[in-house]
Amino acid sequence: MAFDPSTLVYDSRGLIPAIAQDAASGQVLMMAWMNAEAVARTLETGRVTYWSRSRAAFWVKGESSGHVQRLVEMRVDCDRDCLLVTVDQTGPACHTNRRSCFYTAVRGGEEVEILRPEA
Amino acid sequence: MAFDPSTLVYDSRGLIPAIAQDAASGQVLMMAWMNAEAVARTLETGRVTYWSRSRAAFWVKGESSGHVQRLVEMRVDCDRDCLLVTVDQTGPACHTNRRSCFYTAVRGGEEVEILRPEA
Repeated sequence: MAFDPSTLVYDSRGLIPAIAQDAASGQVLMMAWMNAEAVARTLETGRVTYWSRSRAAFWVKGESSGHVQRLVEMRVDCDRDCLLVTVDQTGPACHTNRRSCFYTAVRGGEEVEILRPEA
Repeated sequence: MAFDPSTLVYDSRGLIPAIAQDAASGQVLMMAWMNAEAVARTLETGRVTYWSRSRAAFWVKGESSGHVQRLVEMRVDCDRDCLLVTVDQTGPACHTNRRSCFYTAVRGGEEVEILRPEA
């Protein structure tokens, strides 16, 4: 069946969460949001493109930082209301310069930093 | 720093997305939602507990199916508005009996089923 971005289930803002996972290591890098046009652009260009809620604009990941995400594969979940994009990530995915945004773990009731910013 | 679920950033419904990842294989299994109490219960019990939007009730994963998720580690992202839970998953995570909810890939513009239901 041909994939049509309009058949995904978007929230009241027209957005769907997209989880980015490093295709090589399996590390979960970040979660951000796409609208239907961002989904289409990601597939067309192979450059992962989100919708920035704060800037209300398309956000081609790495456009300013150089930390681009090349799409390896887009996957859709059973409810069609969440995406998983496996990516080839250049440099850190997080704006804090860490490889992943999920650098804080909860261990023994305490917050522990488990990833350091890259040099 | 002691972790306090009330310091997370919840949406207008009081919910935060939680990505479940198989701690052993790295496979992304599903995404669902938690409220502050579900976060607390997950940490207290070690049983991953979501908030079911459709049932408007706590959803202890596997309570009815037996496909439980034992919490290995909870991680918080840089914006504190998304969680990653690494889990020890018993059986399939998806209600369709597939290991992961992300069983549909987009390849060459077509939707392709990449995971079959388990026997």
